[in-house]
Amino acid sequence: MAADKGAVRKVLDKAKADGRTALTAPEGKALCDAYGIAVPQEGVANSAADAAKLAGAMGFPVVLKIVSPDILHKTEAGGVLVGLKSTDEVSKGYETILANAKKYKASAQIEGVQVQQMLAGGQEVIIGAVTDGSFGKLVAFGMGGVLVEVLKDITFRLAPATKDDALSMLDGIQAAEMLKGVRGSAAVSRDALADLIVKVSELVTDFPEVAELDLNPVFATPKSAIAADVRIVLDFAPPAPRYRPSQQEILTSMRRIMQPDAVAVIGASAEDGKIGNSVMKNLINGGYQGQIYPIHPKADEIMGRKAFKSVKDVPGVIDIAVFAIPAKFVAQALVECGEKKIPGAILIPSGFAETGNVEGQTEIQEIGRKYNVRLMGPNIYGFYYTWKNLCATFCTAYDYKGHAALSSQSGGIGMAIIGFSRSAKMGVSAIVGLGNKSDLDEDDLLTFFEQDDNTHIIAQHCEDLKDGRSFAEVAKRVTKKKPVVVLKAGRTAAGAKAASSHTGALAGNDKIYDDVFKQCGVIRANSLRDMLDFARGIPKLPTPKGENVVIITGAGGSGVLLSDACVANDLKLMAMPADLDQAFRKFIPPFGAAGNPVDITGGEPPKTYQNTIRLGLEDPRIHSLILGYWHTIITPPMVFAKLVVEVVEEMRGKNILKPIVASLAGDVQVEEASEYLYDHGIPAYPYSTEIPVAVLGAKYKWARGAGLIR
Amino acid sequence: MAADKGAVRKVLDKAKADGRTALTAPEGKALCDAYGIAVPQEGVANSAADAAKLAGAMGFPVVLKIVSPDILHKTEAGGVLVGLKSTDEVSKGYETILANAKKYKASAQIEGVQVQQMLAGGQEVIIGAVTDGSFGKLVAFGMGGVLVEVLKDITFRLAPATKDDALSMLDGIQAAEMLKGVRGSAAVSRDALADLIVKVSELVTDFPEVAELDLNPVFATPKSAIAADVRIVLDFAPPAPRYRPSQQEILTSMRRIMQPDAVAVIGASAEDGKIGNSVMKNLINGGYQGQIYPIHPKADEIMGRKAFKSVKDVPGVIDIAVFAIPAKFVAQALVECGEKKIPGAILIPSGFAETGNVEGQTEIQEIGRKYNVRLMGPNIYGFYYTWKNLCATFCTAYDYKGHAALSSQSGGIGMAIIGFSRSAKMGVSAIVGLGNKSDLDEDDLLTFFEQDDNTHIIAQHCEDLKDGRSFAEVAKRVTKKKPVVVLKAGRTAAGAKAASSHTGALAGNDKIYDDVFKQCGVIRANSLRDMLDFARGIPKLPTPKGENVVIITGAGGSGVLLSDACVANDLKLMAMPADLDQAFRKFIPPFGAAGNPVDITGGEPPKTYQNTIRLGLEDPRIHSLILGYWHTIITPPMVFAKLVVEVVEEMRGKNILKPIVASLAGDVQVEEASEYLYDHGIPAYPYSTEIPVAVLGAKYKWARGAGLIR
Repeated sequence: MAADKGAVRKVLDKAKADGRTALTAPEGKALCDAYGIAVPQEGVANSAADAAKLAGAMGFPVVLKIVSPDILHKTEAGGVLVGLKSTDEVSKGYETILANAKKYKASAQIEGVQVQQMLAGGQEVIIGAVTDGSFGKLVAFGMGGVLVEVLKDITFRLAPATKDDALSMLDGIQAAEMLKGVRGSAAVSRDALADLIVKVSELVTDFPEVAELDLNPVFATPKSAIAADVRIVLDFAPPAPRYRPSQQEILTSMRRIMQPDAVAVIGASAEDGKIGNSVMKNLINGGYQGQIYPIHPKADEIMGRKAFKSVKDVPGVIDIAVFAIPAKFVAQALVECGEKKIPGAILIPSGFAETGNVEGQTEIQEIGRKYNVRLMGPNIYGFYYTWKNLCATFCTAYDYKGHAALSSQSGGIGMAIIGFSRSAKMGVSAIVGLGNKSDLDEDDLLTFFEQDDNTHIIAQHCEDLKDGRSFAEVAKRVTKKKPVVVLKAGRTAAGAKAASSHTGALAGNDKIYDDVFKQCGVIRANSLRDMLDFARGIPKLPTPKGENVVIITGAGGSGVLLSDACVANDLKLMAMPADLDQAFRKFIPPFGAAGNPVDITGGEPPKTYQNTIRLGLEDPRIHSLILGYWHTIITPPMVFAKLVVEVVEEMRGKNILKPIVASLAGDVQVEEASEYLYDHGIPAYPYSTEIPVAVLGAKYKWARGAGLIR
Repeated sequence: MAADKGAVRKVLDKAKADGRTALTAPEGKALCDAYGIAVPQEGVANSAADAAKLAGAMGFPVVLKIVSPDILHKTEAGGVLVGLKSTDEVSKGYETILANAKKYKASAQIEGVQVQQMLAGGQEVIIGAVTDGSFGKLVAFGMGGVLVEVLKDITFRLAPATKDDALSMLDGIQAAEMLKGVRGSAAVSRDALADLIVKVSELVTDFPEVAELDLNPVFATPKSAIAADVRIVLDFAPPAPRYRPSQQEILTSMRRIMQPDAVAVIGASAEDGKIGNSVMKNLINGGYQGQIYPIHPKADEIMGRKAFKSVKDVPGVIDIAVFAIPAKFVAQALVECGEKKIPGAILIPSGFAETGNVEGQTEIQEIGRKYNVRLMGPNIYGFYYTWKNLCATFCTAYDYKGHAALSSQSGGIGMAIIGFSRSAKMGVSAIVGLGNKSDLDEDDLLTFFEQDDNTHIIAQHCEDLKDGRSFAEVAKRVTKKKPVVVLKAGRTAAGAKAASSHTGALAGNDKIYDDVFKQCGVIRANSLRDMLDFARGIPKLPTPKGENVVIITGAGGSGVLLSDACVANDLKLMAMPADLDQAFRKFIPPFGAAGNPVDITGGEPPKTYQNTIRLGLEDPRIHSLILGYWHTIITPPMVFAKLVVEVVEEMRGKNILKPIVASLAGDVQVEEASEYLYDHGIPAYPYSTEIPVAVLGAKYKWARGAGLIR
C-alpha cells in the first residue's frame, strides 16, 4: 500500500499553521491511517443495528462511547461500556447508553455512539521513532512496561529500516524470547510487527518534522500488531543537513591528500625541538620520495631543501600543506593554500575549538569550504601513509608497512597506536589524527581506504561522530568489502562527560551507537587493546566459509577456557559428526577426549598436533580452527609453531584456506613461538585464551555482516 | 520469634513415613507457620458474625470457601466467593455460601466457612531454596514472571543467609529498581522481604531433607511480604557431607607440605627426559636447601644424592614425597609413605579419574585417608614454593620470589602462569597444580596461604569446586585478610561441557558461582589475563581508604576511555569540590579541563604532572589516582616514570599511601617506563586504558568485601 503523503502533509500543515508541536489523537490516527499503521478500528453508529453491524465487522470485544458535544464526562454520564462480547450485548449496550445519556442531560445533542475495537491480550510492545543529533531519524522497538522502563531493553535502527532491519530488531532485545511465546502464550506475528516498524521508519523519513513518535502500547498477537495509542511531537525547524561533497569529490581530494607527490611544510624549521623541525625530519628520515617544500618567512634553505616564503611561491603543484605554525597564523596561510589550489591542509596546531576558540575554527572551516581545501584537524599529530614512506607528523617516524589503516580522534590514543604497532609488529598502511574534525572525519577516511589496495582493515578511535548518518551510510557500503573496527569512547555517562570536556562533543545514548554499528556491519571494539588486537589479527585471517569452529588443544584446561570464550564471542562450536570424531580419535590417546574441543592431551609428540590439525584443515565441514598449545619437553614451543606453519602451508598449496588462531600456554619461549606464528599468518597469543577467540569472533562478526556467511 | 522445629519435624516425619517426597499445601503452610514465614491468614467461621470478625481482623479483601468433607467441587457448589470487601459483604456471603451448599447437597456435613486473606497488588516476587551439588543449600530471590523465566534475573546466596546477605539480594537483581517503586507504585518493604529470605534460608539449613522450596508468588507491599503459594520437595537421602579435617589439622599438614624440610622423590632418575629426572634437577638447580632423598628400586645414588629403595629406608623425617612413577605403582608406594608418616604426597602421575580410572583414584584416596597422607593431584605438574627455593615439579624451575600464590586445576594453565610470571616479573610465593583434586583442593590452599606471611594475594584457576560449601566458608574468612581471585572456567554451557570431558566435573549454574563468590568476598576474574594481571597488580596497591577516585591525564582521549573503564569497574569518579578544582587549575593551562578527569593537556612539562599528582596525593579527600600519560618530547616516558616515583616516595615519607595505577600512551619507550613504574609499586600498562582500571577496580572490590571501605 502506497502511503497517502498528501493526507499527512495536510495534517502537518494545519498543526504548523496553528503553531502546535504536538498532534491530537485523531490527527495521529490520520497519520497512521495514511501509512497503513494499524490502529483500533472504530465507527459511529446511529442505531442499535448499526452498532451491532459495525462491531461484528471489527470483531469482539468492543467499547461503546456516547458521541455528544454536550457530554464532556462520558463515564460520569454512563456513556461508556467496555468489553462487549456479542452483537446482542452491543445492541443492548447501544440502547443503555442512549437511555443513560438522556437521563444525564435531556437536552444533549446526541450524534451517535462510537463503536471501537477493544485491544487486549497478546504482547504489549513499544514502537517509536526519535531524532538523534548525529544519526538523525531512528526507529526504536522494545517490550512494554518495566522491560523498557526499568531494564532499558530497547533497540534502535537508522530510519528508513528495511524489513530485514526490522526483523533483526525483534531479535535484538534481551527479552526476544517473549515474542516467540512463553508461559503458554502464542508467538506473535513477526511479519506484522516488522511491517509496523518499517512503516513508522518511512513516515519519519518522509516527514522530517515528525521529531518523535510513540506507538505505546502496540498489541502484538499471532495475527496482527495494532497500536492502541499514538503520540507525535513535531519540530518544524530541524537543523540544516551538514554539507557533504559527493563521494567522488571526496575521493579525488583524499587520493591526493593521503598519497601526495609534493608536500609543503608551513613553519618548517631547522631548530631542534620545534614542531616544524620534527615534521621536516620525519619527512626526510622517513624516506619520503616526493617533493618537500619548506615554507618560512626568511630562510632560503632548510635541512638541505630550498625554502619559500609562501606556498604561492612554489613553482610546482602541491598536494598537501602541513601546518606547523601557531593558531593565529593559520587562517592567512590557509588562504594562500587555497589560492595555490592545494587540496589538503594538515592542521597540527592546537588552539581552536578545544581551547574554546570556536570562532577561529569556524573561520578556517569557511576558508576551507571557499577554496575547496579539505582540513585534517586542527589539533592533531598529523598522519602517516607508509606505502609512500610518508610521515607527515611531529611524532616519531614509523615505517613498518602493512595493511591496517588506523585513525584516532585523540593524540594520546594515536601515540598508543604507534607504540603498539611498532612493538607488536602490526603492519600499517596509515595512521591518521583527526583531532577537532573541523572538516575531514571518519567517513572521509572510509571513502579513501575503501578503494586503497594497501588497506585491508580500517580501525578508528572516536569520541563522537559529527555526522553519524553519513558515517553509517558510508560504513554500510565499505564493510561489505573490508572490516571496519570502531572504538567509540565515552560509552558511559562518566566517559561521555570527559569526552564533552575534551572536544565539546555531546555523546548520545550509547545503545544507539551499538545498534547502528551493528546495522552497518561495523565491529565495535570494547577496549583500546581490543581495537589494536583486532586491527593486527583480523587481516591475517582468511574469511571463514561457514560457522563450524573446532578447538584442538593439548591442554584440557585451555579447552574449557577457549570454549567459554567461543560462547562469549558468538562462535559456534561444531557438533562433531560421528565419522569425524572417529577420525580424530585415531590420532589421539584413548583417554583423550574427542568431540569438540578435541583434547589431544598434554604429553603428545609433534605428530599428534600435526595429524589433528591437518585433519581439521582437510575436512570441508570444519570452517575454522582454534589451537590450544601446552608447553612440554616432548613438543617445545618452537617445534609446535613450526609444525603448525608447515601444515598450514601444505594446505595453502592445496588451496585450503581457513582461519586459525592459537593460544599458547607455557614458559616464556611461547612468546617467540607466538611471534613466529603471527609472522606466518596465524594470530597467536601467549598466556591468553580470550584474545585469540575474540579476534576470530570479530572476523566472523564482519563476515556475517558483509553477507559472506549465511 | 524462635522457629517451632518440633512442628516441622512432625510434618516431615509423617511425609517420610508415607513415602512422599512432596508436601501438601497445608503441610507447607505448617512449615511456613513454624518459621514465621507469612502466608495468607485464614480461619474457619461457624457463623456470619464469626466470619465478619475474622475478616475484619485479617483485613480486606477476603475469600470465603465452604468447608465440608462432602463437597469436593467447591466452586461448582457455589461454595466460593472472592474479593469480599467489607464485614457486610462477608456476613451476606457466609449466608449465601451456606444456602448454596445446602441446595447443592442437602445431606452434606458442613464444618464451617473458611475465611482467607486475599492477596493482590504489590510486587510479585519469588523466594526459593535449592540444593546444589557443590554448595549445598542456597536461597534464591527474583522478580516474578518473565523476569525470572525469560531473563533469568535471579540471585543466589548460601544458606543460612544473614539479614545483610538478604538485603544484598534485593539489590542483586537487574530489576532491583522495581522494588523501589516505579510507574507510580510504592516501594516494597525491604525489611519484610529480607526477613522472609532469612527465614527460608534457616528452614532449609535446619532441615536438610527440604531439597527444594518455592514461595511463588510472594506479594511484596510497603508493609508486608506474604507467600501466596508454597511448594516443597523433600529428599530423605541427601549425600553424606564430605569428610573434612579440622582447619587446625589441615594447617598442620599444609605447613609441612608447602614448606618441607625433606623431600623424597619416588621414581627419581638420572636419565634425561624422565619425569623423575626433571624433578631431581628442579629441586637441586632450584636451590632447595632441605634434604632430598631419591627413591629408586636399584640405584645407590642419583645426581650425587644417596638413593633408597623405599621411603621406609630413609633414616630421617620426610615431609613430602613427590611421585614420578606410573599410575599402577602409586598405591603401593603411597602405603609406604603412610607407614613412614609422610604428611603429603605430590602425585604427578596421570592415568586416574581423568582417563576413566575412577577405581584407581578411589583406592589412593582411601589409602591417603587411612594413613593421614594428604594427596596433591594426581595428574599435576607439581608445585613451587619460592621462599624455600622449592621446585617440586617436572616443569621448568622458577625462582622469582614475590607475594602472589597461584594455583591451577589444569597443567596447561599452570604453564601459562609460570610463563607470564617470568615474563611480567610477577613475584610469586607459590604455584600449585591441583589436577584431579582427589584430596587437596582450593580451600586447603586458602587455609595455608591465609597464615603464610610470604603470600599477599591468592589467585586460583578452577574448573569445579568439589566442595563449594567448604571453599565458601574458608574464603569468607580468608578474604577478610587477603584478596582471593578466582578464574572459574566452564562458565558457559559449552565451556562446562569441555570441563566435564576434561575432569569429570559437573559445572553448576554459573550465576551461583558469581553470587557465592560475591557473598564470600572473592574477586572473580573474567579471563586468564585478568587473573594474571590481578595477581600481579593488586598486591602492589595499598588498600584505598575511600571511594573517591581521581583521573589525572595528559591525554584527553585517555581520560575519556579511563572514565568509561571506571564505570565498567564500579569505581566512583569523585565529584571535584570547588576549592580542589581551583587548586588543580593553578597548575594546568587555562584551556585544560579541571573537574574529573583532570586534563592537564598534552604539551606540558614534567612539572605539571608532578604538581598535579602531588596535589592528588596530598589532598585527603582523594583516595586513589589513575594516571593517563601521553608521550611527548617535553615529558618523555622515563622522565614521567621517574617523576611519578619521586612524588610517590616523597609522599610515602609523609606516610601518605594511596593506590595509583597508570595508563601509558606512546611509542615503545612507554614499555620500559611501565616496567620501571611497576618495579616501584605503581601498576602501569602501555597501550591500555582498561587494564590499569580493572586492577584498581579489583582492589576496591576486595576492600569493600573485606569491610575496609564503607
